[in-house]
Amino acid sequence: MSPELARIGHVALETPDLESSLSFFRDAVGLEEVERDGTTVYLRAVDEFDHHSLSLTEADRAGVDHVGWQTVNRESLSEFADQFEKRGVDVTWIEEGTERGQGEAIRFTTPTGHRFEFFAEMEKPEAPEERRSKLKNRAFSSVGSNPIAPRRIDHVQLWDPDATEFSQWLKDELDFQVQEYYDREDGSRWGTFLSACGNKIEAAVIDDEDETHPPALHHIAYKVDSADDLFDAAGAMRERGIPTDGIGQHSISRGKFLYTRDPESDHRIEFNAGGYLVFDPHWEPVAWQESDLEDRQWIGQIESKKRVEY
Amino acid sequence: MSPELARIGHVALETPDLESSLSFFRDAVGLEEVERDGTTVYLRAVDEFDHHSLSLTEADRAGVDHVGWQTVNRESLSEFADQFEKRGVDVTWIEEGTERGQGEAIRFTTPTGHRFEFFAEMEKPEAPEERRSKLKNRAFSSVGSNPIAPRRIDHVQLWDPDATEFSQWLKDELDFQVQEYYDREDGSRWGTFLSACGNKIEAAVIDDEDETHPPALHHIAYKVDSADDLFDAAGAMRERGIPTDGIGQHSISRGKFLYTRDPESDHRIEFNAGGYLVFDPHWEPVAWQESDLEDRQWIGQIESKKRVEY
Amino acid sequence: MSPELARIGHVALETPDLESSLSFFRDAVGLEEVERDGTTVYLRAVDEFDHHSLSLTEADRAGVDHVGWQTVNRESLSEFADQFEKRGVDVTWIEEGTERGQGEAIRFTTPTGHRFEFFAEMEKPEAPEERRSKLKNRAFSSVGSNPIAPRRIDHVQLWDPDATEFSQWLKDELDFQVQEYYDREDGSRWGTFLSACGNKIEAAVIDDEDETHPPALHHIAYKVDSADDLFDAAGAMRERGIPTDGIGQHSISRGKFLYTRDPESDHRIEFNAGGYLVFDPHWEPVAWQESDLEDRQWIGQIESKKRVEY
Amino acid sequence: MSPELARIGHVALETPDLESSLSFFRDAVGLEEVERDGTTVYLRAVDEFDHHSLSLTEADRAGVDHVGWQTVNRESLSEFADQFEKRGVDVTWIEEGTERGQGEAIRFTTPTGHRFEFFAEMEKPEAPEERRSKLKNRAFSSVGSNPIAPRRIDHVQLWDPDATEFSQWLKDELDFQVQEYYDREDGSRWGTFLSACGNKIEAAVIDDEDETHPPALHHIAYKVDSADDLFDAAGAMRERGIPTDGIGQHSISRGKFLYTRDPESDHRIEFNAGGYLVFDPHWEPVAWQESDLEDRQWIGQIESKKRVEY
Repeated sequence: MSPELARIGHVALETPDLESSLSFFRDAVGLEEVERDGTTVYLRAVDEFDHHSLSLTEADRAGVDHVGWQTVNRESLSEFADQFEKRGVDVTWIEEGTERGQGEAIRFTTPTGHRFEFFAEMEKPEAPEERRSKLKNRAFSSVGSNPIAPRRIDHVQLWDPDATEFSQWLKDELDFQVQEYYDREDGSRWGTFLSACGNKIEAAVIDDEDETHPPALHHIAYKVDSADDLFDAAGAMRERGIPTDGIGQHSISRGKFLYTRDPESDHRIEFNAGGYLVFDPHWEPVAWQESDLEDRQWIGQIESKKRVEY
Repeated sequence: MSPELARIGHVALETPDLESSLSFFRDAVGLEEVERDGTTVYLRAVDEFDHHSLSLTEADRAGVDHVGWQTVNRESLSEFADQFEKRGVDVTWIEEGTERGQGEAIRFTTPTGHRFEFFAEMEKPEAPEERRSKLKNRAFSSVGSNPIAPRRIDHVQLWDPDATEFSQWLKDELDFQVQEYYDREDGSRWGTFLSACGNKIEAAVIDDEDETHPPALHHIAYKVDSADDLFDAAGAMRERGIPTDGIGQHSISRGKFLYTRDPESDHRIEFNAGGYLVFDPHWEPVAWQESDLEDRQWIGQIESKKRVEY
Repeated sequence: MSPELARIGHVALETPDLESSLSFFRDAVGLEEVERDGTTVYLRAVDEFDHHSLSLTEADRAGVDHVGWQTVNRESLSEFADQFEKRGVDVTWIEEGTERGQGEAIRFTTPTGHRFEFFAEMEKPEAPEERRSKLKNRAFSSVGSNPIAPRRIDHVQLWDPDATEFSQWLKDELDFQVQEYYDREDGSRWGTFLSACGNKIEAAVIDDEDETHPPALHHIAYKVDSADDLFDAAGAMRERGIPTDGIGQHSISRGKFLYTRDPESDHRIEFNAGGYLVFDPHWEPVAWQESDLEDRQWIGQIESKKRVEY
Repeated sequence: MSPELARIGHVALETPDLESSLSFFRDAVGLEEVERDGTTVYLRAVDEFDHHSLSLTEADRAGVDHVGWQTVNRESLSEFADQFEKRGVDVTWIEEGTERGQGEAIRFTTPTGHRFEFFAEMEKPEAPEERRSKLKNRAFSSVGSNPIAPRRIDHVQLWDPDATEFSQWLKDELDFQVQEYYDREDGSRWGTFLSACGNKIEAAVIDDEDETHPPALHHIAYKVDSADDLFDAAGAMRERGIPTDGIGQHSISRGKFLYTRDPESDHRIEFNAGGYLVFDPHWEPVAWQESDLEDRQWIGQIESKKRVEY
């Protein structure tokens, strides 16, 4: 039996100014600060019981330290480590608690250069009593929360000049399921939308057309409840003078979106609403051709400005 | 006592292909067809009891025949006619029923060239029995309606190279109230947002920077209930292959919007949600300077595309 | 020319425990505290530029001091005073500033016993700088607001054993427009839904079937943007252990509602979303018969609990 | 390795009047009719690619023929059959296509009397061309759909006087995961909320306090996108004169709901919005005590009617 991933866990970001980025992710976006450890701050969303889904570490420049994935159990973690070593992928073991709240973990670099972490266990610290919800299925009360606070981490979008190779590796070595993909008119693949948990897109892998670019993180998506929440978030960013990058709805995934960026680090958050879930054990990847989307990559896209005379 | 306007009434549009435009406004947008008279079709929205808020007439080219405004009563209509003639504005009287469902009316051209119609009375034909709502405060049942059917006409946006003169005339001669305005850095006025009813913007007058342009209609806005409705409308247009021009929220008026256009005539409809109402008898126009909006004309506006490396 | 009302202004409530009621109206509901004057606190909603739409005064028991209505101008205020005196209604003049932020006013008791105040002018104090919105058409920033903060006062519901007499007086003496009414099967009137501004229901007058009751205030409605907001408000009240009285949609007015009450005083707030507006100068009151609503007074009403066996 | 379930599949209902019930489930609720086979009609929701999530069969009385669950693959189906026979549960094999669109299946009665069906494979018939969506991740276009059409089957609520025994059996024999449960003050269990897929509640098992009742189906829940959709559905039922049983939000599961019933058969549909998903491999069941919910079983619940005098 093969080792198995459970889901996306967290993203570890680097920023040149910790306090400034914290004010974006905590105060503007509405993530909850869980713990500080020197120059690293751990955050989670209001519906998350686990220790963190994001960490911020002060560094020379804005960067991505790693993307973290949870295995279904401790055995799977060891089996992945063994499997990687057989394939010549260097694995570094990280002791329990090195990344706060987290059990033993492994870190490695994928063949095309993405830095990943796998872990099996994570603590579930209770919310501070005054922030705890009477709804026992919520980690935090809505009272006292930032009104636009998103619910939970949803997915990452990763850019890679070798996107096809990277996607294939995610399928072959990590057993990611392809939920959707999009092919250009020349047959080349523009994007592959993969799932570790099997129910929703967790890694959107996009072809970076500039071959000189190293692999990169385009954005981290957090889930919100409704289209209203997207407008509320856009309005709150407007009040704070923080840039936003559009409201609309992707044709791929059907997710409604608002993008916004930490002005300090340019790390981008997507507030994501809607979309669909896969529970079908025989799901066939949704195959988009360029011609399917030539009229519109996303719904609500601006096409032109015209006027009509009397 | 001066003559008084009650509200925006309707817009009379011309199109080179009546059936094609009808399929946009009735089938895609979800207005109800009320009556046909030769080459003119009259439509209204599902919350409208009055005969029509839009008419489509076949013509050589796409154009705007007139924008119709309702006076508070028949006396005001006559008084406006007298007043215009005193000012040298030519007035043409239109007999009752010439425009179907409508009482006597006057037509005239404003000094900067917009064609307006004033009327006092309009019939309120009942919806066909099978389309009538059990909610007696609705004209049409939601059952059998186009799911994205907007509620009622809200406003028009008019472009004019002499926008300042036109706005001034609307205030001086028609007693429009200024609800908001926006001045460029050089002190020139980009837009004036006026109300006939006194509660909401009904005429957005925008400076057309191309001096050679005749005055024109940029769009007609119809009201919908929620942000969800904007996404639903965008999705429905996507299904039909009809162009849309963005989802977002104006800073001015705070209206959330989706724009879409009749592919045949380029006449543009705004689906508009939210915004605010004025009930204050001492409302002071909201005065925007370019510097207030330099970061963003509208909320959700796309600013850039960036990515962060590992 | 008759004196004219512009709109509902405010409600002056009494409570046995000012701090406790303030914690409901300000902290739980999300109104903004504007000013304190001894044992009276003035509040307004986040979209309100005027000084207050609610005041709370400490008193022996929970009560209603008065309901305040704004006249279109200072002349109308005097004319109303003259008119009342001619009709034998005692009028008390209140000096400017006695009720903070407010110009000269008159207070009187309607023939069936409701205590009303009319005023013409109200100050528009700016929000504190840190609470001011970048959107110049909003009084307060959404950042820092209570996430469920309603927008503006909408209407009051008044109960009266002589409801028909009271409604008639509102029409005859104050020129309120009837927007809707509801008649019981025996022909008696259960409710009349009236407007001072002419655009929306501002006074719902309900027949109190207990003849021994003095006239009373059932609730004050504040406007919110969406159905989502109703659920958010209900959830926030749940977190605070504050009672709520249902979510649903009225057939009359089509307003979506959530009711909640100050646990200290039992004063009730309706969070109200949706509904419709009247701009029609020839609006005919919507006439409901009991038979129209016998299936359902409101949408979403609970009818029964049943189950089906295998 | 144990056999494994993938998810809830469908519910097979019986009704005394097929056409009448069809008009509820297809025309009023908005499910799509897929196929007819004599006195059985198969339906699915607009986001469902599989053949059906509901069937209606004409019968002497309203009843539930079975609740269908999908196994992860064909092997699991056989393994379940073997396992049941070892435990003395009678298994009936159903040939491929007997239930239209479905592969081989087994039917059996659980120890407390629920009739279940397990199947591994189901056809995915394309939507008729004119109903197909341009969004390749949707089964049906939103254009032409009933505006309130729900998305996909979500869960069933099953009542049982031996609810504890039934829940235990679901855990032990079928490996259902407990997502939440609720215990009465005397320690007895009122409800257990279980998942076959592991991500969301799919079987809510409720203690029927009347010991003489056979096990029964209380409702089938279908997912909708938003709170707005609940109000739209309630309004549409109002227009059709179809009973509804409340709008609100469960504390357990956090699902927002509207209940409505087929007037012919009393089969109940829940329109369900919101809630949360479990991706955590170490999820601990949410343990509700009666004292946690004594103030409110659901949010928006009506508590009283009070009024305050002047």
